[in-house]
Amino acid sequence: MIIDIHGHYTTAPKALEEWRNRQIAALGNSAAMPKASELRISDDELRESIEQNQLRLMRERGLDLTIFSPRASFMAHHIGDFGVSSTWAAICNELCHRVSRLFPDQFVPAAMLPQSPGVDPATCVPELVRCIEEYGNVAINLNPDPSGGHWTSPPLTDPHWYPIYEKMIEYDVPAMIHVSTSCNACFHTTGAHYINADTTAFMQLIQGDLFHDFPTLRLVIPHGGGAAPYHWGRYRGLAQEMKKPLLGDHLLKNVFFDTCVYHQPGIDLLTRVIPVANILFASEMIGAVRGIDPDTGFNFDDTRRYVAAVPNLREEDRAAIYEGNARRVYPRLDAALKAKGR
Amino acid sequence: MIIDIHGHYTTAPKALEEWRNRQIAALGNSAAMPKASELRISDDELRESIEQNQLRLMRERGLDLTIFSPRASFMAHHIGDFGVSSTWAAICNELCHRVSRLFPDQFVPAAMLPQSPGVDPATCVPELVRCIEEYGNVAINLNPDPSGGHWTSPPLTDPHWYPIYEKMIEYDVPAMIHVSTSCNACFHTTGAHYINADTTAFMQLIQGDLFHDFPTLRLVIPHGGGAAPYHWGRYRGLAQEMKKPLLGDHLLKNVFFDTCVYHQPGIDLLTRVIPVANILFASEMIGAVRGIDPDTGFNFDDTRRYVAAVPNLREEDRAAIYEGNARRVYPRLDAALKAKGR
Repeated sequence: MIIDIHGHYTTAPKALEEWRNRQIAALGNSAAMPKASELRISDDELRESIEQNQLRLMRERGLDLTIFSPRASFMAHHIGDFGVSSTWAAICNELCHRVSRLFPDQFVPAAMLPQSPGVDPATCVPELVRCIEEYGNVAINLNPDPSGGHWTSPPLTDPHWYPIYEKMIEYDVPAMIHVSTSCNACFHTTGAHYINADTTAFMQLIQGDLFHDFPTLRLVIPHGGGAAPYHWGRYRGLAQEMKKPLLGDHLLKNVFFDTCVYHQPGIDLLTRVIPVANILFASEMIGAVRGIDPDTGFNFDDTRRYVAAVPNLREEDRAAIYEGNARRVYPRLDAALKAKGR
Repeated sequence: MIIDIHGHYTTAPKALEEWRNRQIAALGNSAAMPKASELRISDDELRESIEQNQLRLMRERGLDLTIFSPRASFMAHHIGDFGVSSTWAAICNELCHRVSRLFPDQFVPAAMLPQSPGVDPATCVPELVRCIEEYGNVAINLNPDPSGGHWTSPPLTDPHWYPIYEKMIEYDVPAMIHVSTSCNACFHTTGAHYINADTTAFMQLIQGDLFHDFPTLRLVIPHGGGAAPYHWGRYRGLAQEMKKPLLGDHLLKNVFFDTCVYHQPGIDLLTRVIPVANILFASEMIGAVRGIDPDTGFNFDDTRRYVAAVPNLREEDRAAIYEGNARRVYPRLDAALKAKGR
């Protein structure tokens, strides 16, 4: 089985964006705020939005299952207050839940959180619990910068974030560390802010001792770990100067990287540098980079081709990247699959 | 000849830091401000600080010449106002100038600029001109984020920066895009802010059309280009979606990457992905990562070993990375060397 641990609902029916635009237009004017119940999207519309897009590509590429969360760039936690984020997160999570019910064999949901800049992350716990208990979510996405490119929250190792981590451990779910849209003109959302956030999060984890406090916490750094694998020597050297343990002991029991790196040399480096046990197959399809690579004739984000082509990767290692590691890092996914005999 | 295009004066005598601390302590109290003339460092002190450190390592590693600029993390453009930055930049540039006079065969200076957040970069032009005309500087360091991790300046493609670019073209000097200390707790200076800035700058250049306006402008992205080479497929794909030319045409006549990547797989990827003509040898020694890699027994920042060990790199390509490209990208360096028959 091939599990893609990183998919977003980027193809939701237009009504979703229209509702969000109405919500944004009503900021500061509670009388004009649209109600969640005013958004109506039929099952047929959901089906079509998935079948023509993600599911079509999954079939073409031989991917069996996607861990599916709301569109990352649309989370936009910087917009409005906690109430605004809360309604929006509930809507987006419900849509992913409905997709997972319509396509129960192919999509398993992961939750966005109703984060808001300057608001205690503990406020996100009820939505997190609801998504796990009622919707069967197997993971969450945690935004380390709800300000959208101004980085006004404390580092991920700060007790500020502990209420989230405590619930994650209680429910045995991992978090993908994933920012949203940049509203800082310096940072292009998918070309700079996403990658920077991955690099930033990894360095925060080196500096801190988070996994001393939470030995079973599991965090996924997407987009191939940002710059971390390419600069692995730098990170090993910095950790050494900070008198931290070797990265294998300090972080790699708890930190995982996905394969959203859109060319062969990048995937080759990732698999050469990072232990196989810490690599999770993913494509973030349909996402930031949708075109066809003129050099290969295939989609840039068809990461299965790169993983399949890594030289000298043993078949059992490739299977771990495709499936085994995801079952270990996402135990609720594994349990759900086993309950179906998969 | 092996030219290291990225060295900082990280080992300056303690008196420099003490003077800076007095300057910082006097912020807002002009009567207490130390004068530049109160800093006294003898030639012997300068010699010792270099001979025991950079020069010793250059000899051990077989490096012939270093393009030498003030310590990047000490630029700290976010501290004080333009006057504070101006005095500080003048002091730091003078010290690098003196080092280059004491060791004329081994060190050639590059200038820091007296940038200050919110201040027109045109104010930096007099120091830039002085460093080139009086001190023989062959390049400048340009900080895309003088706020120190808050990213409050416009992108590098904005006309905000054009006064600097115009002078660079007039004098035919390149700029290394290099941030300074992060004062944002989210960003570790050398582990996150430096690498993020490289990635950010590269993406800004993709988004813009800077080299349409300045076809001969040359920018060096340090630290191996941040995350750009590792995510080259992402950047090629994003450029394609933005209807930009191929990166080779859009950027690679004007943008260069150094080899400050501290492990073999990283350098292997860099040389596999980026055309040889765009790679400049560098180590940033003595800099962010000073320790010995326990896996190899050699310093993490001994980048010559990695470049020497790249498989299937032709000797003429290695020579281009070591020397030829630097002479082309830094024509004032080439002229200075030729004037000495080198």
